[in-house]
Amino acid sequence: MIIRQIHVTPVAFRDPPLLNAAGVHEPWALRTIVEVVTDQGLTGLGETYGDLDHLGKVRMCAQALIGLDVHATNTMYARISALLGAPEPGTTATETGTTTPGPFTVATNPEEETKERTGESPGERTKERTVDRVFSPFEVACLDIRGKAAGVPVSDLLGGRVRDAVPYSAYLFYKWAGHPDEQQPDRFGAALDPAGIVEQAGLLIDEYGFESIKLKGGVHPPDEEIAAIRALHEAFPGVPLRLDPNAAWTVETSIRVGRELDGVLQYLEDPTAGIPGMAEVAAAVPMPLATNMCVVTPEHFPPAMAATRAIGVLLLDHHYWGGLVRSAHIAAMCDAFGLSMSMHSNSHLGISLAAMTHLAAATPNLTFACDTHTPWQDGQDVIQPGALHFTNGAVPVPTAPGLGVDLDRDALAVMNEQYEKCGIVARDDTSYMQRFTPTFTAKRPRW
Amino acid sequence: MIIRQIHVTPVAFRDPPLLNAAGVHEPWALRTIVEVVTDQGLTGLGETYGDLDHLGKVRMCAQALIGLDVHATNTMYARISALLGAPEPGTTATETGTTTPGPFTVATNPEEETKERTGESPGERTKERTVDRVFSPFEVACLDIRGKAAGVPVSDLLGGRVRDAVPYSAYLFYKWAGHPDEQQPDRFGAALDPAGIVEQAGLLIDEYGFESIKLKGGVHPPDEEIAAIRALHEAFPGVPLRLDPNAAWTVETSIRVGRELDGVLQYLEDPTAGIPGMAEVAAAVPMPLATNMCVVTPEHFPPAMAATRAIGVLLLDHHYWGGLVRSAHIAAMCDAFGLSMSMHSNSHLGISLAAMTHLAAATPNLTFACDTHTPWQDGQDVIQPGALHFTNGAVPVPTAPGLGVDLDRDALAVMNEQYEKCGIVARDDTSYMQRFTPTFTAKRPRW
Ligand SMILES: [Mg+2]
Ligand SMILES: [Mg+2]
Repeated sequence: MIIRQIHVTPVAFRDPPLLNAAGVHEPWALRTIVEVVTDQGLTGLGETYGDLDHLGKVRMCAQALIGLDVHATNTMYARISALLGAPEPGTTATETGTTTPGPFTVATNPEEETKERTGESPGERTKERTVDRVFSPFEVACLDIRGKAAGVPVSDLLGGRVRDAVPYSAYLFYKWAGHPDEQQPDRFGAALDPAGIVEQAGLLIDEYGFESIKLKGGVHPPDEEIAAIRALHEAFPGVPLRLDPNAAWTVETSIRVGRELDGVLQYLEDPTAGIPGMAEVAAAVPMPLATNMCVVTPEHFPPAMAATRAIGVLLLDHHYWGGLVRSAHIAAMCDAFGLSMSMHSNSHLGISLAAMTHLAAATPNLTFACDTHTPWQDGQDVIQPGALHFTNGAVPVPTAPGLGVDLDRDALAVMNEQYEKCGIVARDDTSYMQRFTPTFTAKRPRW
Repeated sequence: MIIRQIHVTPVAFRDPPLLNAAGVHEPWALRTIVEVVTDQGLTGLGETYGDLDHLGKVRMCAQALIGLDVHATNTMYARISALLGAPEPGTTATETGTTTPGPFTVATNPEEETKERTGESPGERTKERTVDRVFSPFEVACLDIRGKAAGVPVSDLLGGRVRDAVPYSAYLFYKWAGHPDEQQPDRFGAALDPAGIVEQAGLLIDEYGFESIKLKGGVHPPDEEIAAIRALHEAFPGVPLRLDPNAAWTVETSIRVGRELDGVLQYLEDPTAGIPGMAEVAAAVPMPLATNMCVVTPEHFPPAMAATRAIGVLLLDHHYWGGLVRSAHIAAMCDAFGLSMSMHSNSHLGISLAAMTHLAAATPNLTFACDTHTPWQDGQDVIQPGALHFTNGAVPVPTAPGLGVDLDRDALAVMNEQYEKCGIVARDDTSYMQRFTPTFTAKRPRW
């Protein structure tokens, strides 16, 4: 099954003003939709980030994959590595080169780490991470095609599902009533204090049936966020709770918050930046620390797994771990090292929700409810309706061949038009926040 | 594709008197051939150990897989785990139970570790290892079927080949001229000193074209084996050399030998027993240490990857790492931790050689020539001739669907008859050696 065409389409969809440590979500979220078409006319779908720089890389690499068999993912990865100037696959971290991209100091997306904060040496690791991110949508699309050709769901290509539905968590955000430039508040309403957060949780749980709750923190001073978690604990007794301030805290603040929330949090996610800081916090707080910031590429495992464990929970994300099979490798590594797993999410559409659900279904040790932004996309999608739905906060695993979702070409065209018109080419929560709060700074740690 | 039948057939084939730290190979080597048959009439092949205890487990577990889809490997693994009393998949090592099998102190197979030597806590790890060993032939057979159904070689199911031929090493053994009970010496001749070893290397290199050499050591006092390695180095300048005494040495002896062979050995394999001892040696010798003894299950990674690295090369073996996909996970872990890789071998037949070749071909970071016992089986096989051959010591990767090998039913019947008649039900190099050298002891370290 030879790849004959690849279509790469950027899309934009409406996004509510969700607050986080880097600022606030802009009115439009961006994604890139990848369609891989074979000589036999089968089409596979993939979905990835929409920022212009990433889109350019995806487009450039798409050209290099034409003519390859859909099974040749090792060769695809090697070609993408070569195009992006990354080390040859198979060379280990200790053997890699030293190309150094420009340093950056402040992230404009809460989950992007600055170099100083990750404690990474710059250079090849950043490039390997880029390769994984660019490779991912092509790999997912090839698995979609292979599943369709074999007449089996993608989860079957990953070892078969061990659960028939994948639980997700209610992902709460502090938020404004609406975008300041717009007259109309959105239907989710404002959430700026514990009462607002509890109300938002009630709304999402009513609609989706979620049985776990995560609060995006790092927005208000820690004591206010502690109060919000306590309010959730009282309003939803027994429901597992998580708090993710995106490294907005110092080690000291992290330890204080962790200790105060003993017995209340299932896990504390990225309280502080970098593996050494996380290790210090992990040794001093009672609950496991989770991350999607300090361990984001295989080379982060050795330092994170050193004598003093930095983390206890890894949030897997096939978008940056290099697709579904590479994510399965990471899951095996977590199992070997005794790490628990959940799943990370950015704003995403239904292709990604399908891929996330297949991956989670076929990963025995992914036992914590996954994150998803699905509620915040509020029905907007590029896939035809009906394939995915939530029951008790869980998405039943599609059993149709491949990912089990089909592109809605009209919706794709509308969203692509929105992309062209919206004027946003890269996520920048910080600048958007500064338009309304000029003194806002995304510098972390803030508390 | 539902599994309707599984045939499990033990076979025996002639084996030369190859010497090792545990004793000497008996006249017959045992293997188990697994055939998985689907409702659509496709057959997949797997090959595993032939010892009676293992054969019994494979037979018992085969029954439990009838009715499953060939993709449902997660469920297969879970059922085999349950049948063998192992922990549920997904529970980590730290959460597992405490069932304790009887301890054993002396191995009768050179690569089986005693409990004391591995430094393992007994119990669940041994059981997990057993699950991986029993699961492996079924997984390989299912991949064979999936490859045939999709019309692609197994390597394509593992990401596609990154090399068209897989290099193997010449695997040298000290050996007697023939089995003492038999009149006829075998065609390989005796090899009991440096000259004999060099002659044997010449024979194997002439026939197979090998471009790397491994010597099985732990047979003679270390200075004699150093002399043999030096003789090989002189006779075959520039050819990578390896020495594997199967943990017959103390830490002190290992350090002495390692230092004396500086610049001569590509790697030193399992000089001493257990992760702590290996770490001590690794810190003191110039070449990397390799292992197929102290890291044989995922739970061995954390201690082996601690601050003082015990090993630099892992010898992968899908027979005990739980099949091809789990071996691919291990390869990813090696890449993350900067470990190099080769491949381990026991006496095996062509089904295993095909599986090893597909795995190695699709593993970018498996860059050292693999081990194989193929020359010692001297043409005996259960597969039809022609599918596999050596060119310059490398096996071209089969490109036919599945493993690319077909069962030779006549050969299978003959070898099964040999199994029934040979009187051997479990490998025991030590007792066999003691028949001829009553004072022989397999206790290690010996030097
Ligand atoms: Mg996070
Ligand atoms: Mg060995």
